[in-house]
Amino acid sequence: MKKLVDLNCDMGESFGRYKLGMDEDVIPYITSANVACGFHAGDPHVMNKTVMLAKKYGVSVGAHPGYPDLLGFGRRKMDVSPEEIKDYIVYQVGALKAFCEVHGVKLQHIKPHGALYNAAGKDPVLARAIAEAVYEVDKELIFLVLAGSEMEKAGKEVGLKTAREVFGDRNYREDGSLVPRSHPKAVLKDDDEVARRVVRMVTEGKVLTIEGIDIDVEVDSICVHGDTLGAINFIKRIRKDLQEKGVEIASLDKIFGKHA
Amino acid sequence: MKKLVDLNCDMGESFGRYKLGMDEDVIPYITSANVACGFHAGDPHVMNKTVMLAKKYGVSVGAHPGYPDLLGFGRRKMDVSPEEIKDYIVYQVGALKAFCEVHGVKLQHIKPHGALYNAAGKDPVLARAIAEAVYEVDKELIFLVLAGSEMEKAGKEVGLKTAREVFGDRNYREDGSLVPRSHPKAVLKDDDEVARRVVRMVTEGKVLTIEGIDIDVEVDSICVHGDTLGAINFIKRIRKDLQEKGVEIASLDKIFGKHA
Amino acid sequence: MKKLVDLNCDMGESFGRYKLGMDEDVIPYITSANVACGFHAGDPHVMNKTVMLAKKYGVSVGAHPGYPDLLGFGRRKMDVSPEEIKDYIVYQVGALKAFCEVHGVKLQHIKPHGALYNAAGKDPVLARAIAEAVYEVDKELIFLVLAGSEMEKAGKEVGLKTAREVFGDRNYREDGSLVPRSHPKAVLKDDDEVARRVVRMVTEGKVLTIEGIDIDVEVDSICVHGDTLGAINFIKRIRKDLQEKGVEIASLDKIFGKHA
Amino acid sequence: MKKLVDLNCDMGESFGRYKLGMDEDVIPYITSANVACGFHAGDPHVMNKTVMLAKKYGVSVGAHPGYPDLLGFGRRKMDVSPEEIKDYIVYQVGALKAFCEVHGVKLQHIKPHGALYNAAGKDPVLARAIAEAVYEVDKELIFLVLAGSEMEKAGKEVGLKTAREVFGDRNYREDGSLVPRSHPKAVLKDDDEVARRVVRMVTEGKVLTIEGIDIDVEVDSICVHGDTLGAINFIKRIRKDLQEKGVEIASLDKIFGKHA
Repeated sequence: MKKLVDLNCDMGESFGRYKLGMDEDVIPYITSANVACGFHAGDPHVMNKTVMLAKKYGVSVGAHPGYPDLLGFGRRKMDVSPEEIKDYIVYQVGALKAFCEVHGVKLQHIKPHGALYNAAGKDPVLARAIAEAVYEVDKELIFLVLAGSEMEKAGKEVGLKTAREVFGDRNYREDGSLVPRSHPKAVLKDDDEVARRVVRMVTEGKVLTIEGIDIDVEVDSICVHGDTLGAINFIKRIRKDLQEKGVEIASLDKIFGKHA
Repeated sequence: MKKLVDLNCDMGESFGRYKLGMDEDVIPYITSANVACGFHAGDPHVMNKTVMLAKKYGVSVGAHPGYPDLLGFGRRKMDVSPEEIKDYIVYQVGALKAFCEVHGVKLQHIKPHGALYNAAGKDPVLARAIAEAVYEVDKELIFLVLAGSEMEKAGKEVGLKTAREVFGDRNYREDGSLVPRSHPKAVLKDDDEVARRVVRMVTEGKVLTIEGIDIDVEVDSICVHGDTLGAINFIKRIRKDLQEKGVEIASLDKIFGKHA
Repeated sequence: MKKLVDLNCDMGESFGRYKLGMDEDVIPYITSANVACGFHAGDPHVMNKTVMLAKKYGVSVGAHPGYPDLLGFGRRKMDVSPEEIKDYIVYQVGALKAFCEVHGVKLQHIKPHGALYNAAGKDPVLARAIAEAVYEVDKELIFLVLAGSEMEKAGKEVGLKTAREVFGDRNYREDGSLVPRSHPKAVLKDDDEVARRVVRMVTEGKVLTIEGIDIDVEVDSICVHGDTLGAINFIKRIRKDLQEKGVEIASLDKIFGKHA
Repeated sequence: MKKLVDLNCDMGESFGRYKLGMDEDVIPYITSANVACGFHAGDPHVMNKTVMLAKKYGVSVGAHPGYPDLLGFGRRKMDVSPEEIKDYIVYQVGALKAFCEVHGVKLQHIKPHGALYNAAGKDPVLARAIAEAVYEVDKELIFLVLAGSEMEKAGKEVGLKTAREVFGDRNYREDGSLVPRSHPKAVLKDDDEVARRVVRMVTEGKVLTIEGIDIDVEVDSICVHGDTLGAINFIKRIRKDLQEKGVEIASLDKIFGKHA
């Protein structure tokens, strides 16, 4: 069977008069859009426009909920209880879902943002709270998470379709976790190397860790960036490299439809 | 046919550590709860608890969206464009609807809050924007509005079930509008008089205006308050007075189901 | 005596991860910076950096308080009472003043922002509330306002040094007010014409109104923009044009020191 | 020399329409008010009224800055960098100081709030950032902190007058730290016992730890609460108990003036 992979990108991060990202430029090259929901970025007007933009390009829409911290762009860990996080997720997913309903678009997935993504990747209680919130709002939603994280476990336990994403430009550890950004070798900067790693992760299911050992990795989606021209050019290149290896770029809905 | 009337009350107006209202005490005596959605009051945790409380007592849930002005409790008019208001409504209604879905409760209605309610009562463009937002999110939602206002017109034009509410403790003008709060006789303070007016509005469809003339008024719901013990006692009294006149206290869903 | 004029520009409008304006590029060409104070734009980190930047270039610092509406960038009128506005002004001015004190810089002036500037230009009660707030925080602050507006009157009545600003790119009416932006001829787009008007206002104290009549105008400062390269080039040109006519570009402090 | 001690209480925690605390009732019995500055609680209008109230009763005013988290009341730790915290402190202290200047009141002290207080009590880098912010805004401000904490060290290193507060109703550990609230014996509930402990801490400089060992403690101020009638009655009792032992209740300004 042909290998399928999704390309997901954060979008709709503008706020009021503040513009962030190059959404119009990146959207033709991705298959899933993670749309900010107003807590760490985004506002109702931006959400509406972003859903319309995704619809126009046939890109699937996902909710990208975060901590209630616009000032810190959701990148600062907050000691919020799992019960409160659950309610924050329901609120944000519901708000975005309403824009999808207005435009006759199906909400495809949900991916936590920033510090919440990082915290829930390691904390099983937090991961479970988020997975439950998603399941309770709509059990058909796909839970897009870091491959091998606590979120993947929680998503499966709760009964959600759980999609695993990888990062081409991040170094991995032997246990499958990401090397933290504080480490000097956390981020890979050579485009050729990143492209090769992405292709290998998708086609071979392997990645070379920072310790120099190959580990297995399962890939449903690749996280890409759309904030610079360079980043967008890199997405085009990745698409081509993957297609040349016989991989089809497809949204999570299609992947999970086929796999189901 | 027996006359039915709904009793609606604002609820879920607490925020974080701040408590407002006596929700637990008033809920047994009302039929529809207008739940704040986080813009002028309320937060995700409060919304969740309020939906659970309403479910427990069999009270119908409505969204109570307002201006994005927590500091002013949504009571200060803001020059927000109709397009933006539309998006604010979709966002807030969607957020609350998600909590309803989590708890297996149907979202019954939507009633704008505070300064937005007042502005949309007089401004046909704003009223239309709100009605369209409601219709686009879910065309089965009941639009709860000031009887005789621009919102009533807009709701009907757009094709929404439009419920008309009255205020027992407010003086009316000959054109059916409320005497503004700046007027010394805006608010009626004698409970007996207020009760008599409410009963007459519901059973006879008449109200005596400040000019001393009777006008016609159509009533689907009565707006009541739940922030003091006195207010709650008044609701009990109104219920009794109405029931003694053969009026049945029923939620909007029941009223619109029967009337439809 | 040589004519002096100030060039003022809004700065420090970034927020968290959101960047707005080209502060580093425009600062060498202006004499007074209006620094946002966190209500409609700006945050503590941005305020600190902006005060440091102004200090580095010897540019005078002013507070630029606005409505509490980050989502609307302070451009939407809010029905806030004069008493509350007074407190909002004290709060914002105080916050910026503290950053000035940290860096050993004197806070020079205060100029209201956006919809608050427009509202206070026409409403004597609001204008008075703002002027009183400024006076009570620090009676040596210069009040930078629209020439001929209610704010100019209020500033003088309260006893503040009141600086009058003009807009080169805006059409004026016979009564000295600005033609509203809704009017098709509100904004002048020809740089040569704008430059000529600015020079004439400063050197002759005259401006040709939209009705085709010359009116008198008193100018202490010119409001310039720093958000595009074109805008910055225009500031350079204006500086040159004015200097060629013998006008000295000087901060408000210097102008009011000399005039005092 | 007669022993002096200050009684400090959090105040001004209301926000918009939300009321919190019994400020008018507690103010006659305390000597220092910690006033919220709008980040975790309080708003400009509340700050203005609270400063006026303190002035009326001759109570000294202090700033009570917190994390930017109104939803969490500043009680949730946030991973904010020390540089950002420094700017948040400057902003909040400056805002309150302006209200003091408006009313001709001297800003006496600053005490961090909630999760920021707890985090800075243990983290020397964070403690230092806060102490530096205070010093740079106004080096005469008194830094009110947990006795024996990292904040006490940082305050002294930076050169601030550093006042040490104790909690009568909290258990202490052998190292002088508070037993965390998660511990079943964290909080003492017997008023007689609390009163005896307070008197002993002030007059003997000793407190019995949870391990059953006496440790030394230095006391400039006692933290009291003003949110219930019971709490206020307890303040009255403590005042009487201390005065009977010859202790004078005095503001920090007086204590540091005498000691200096």
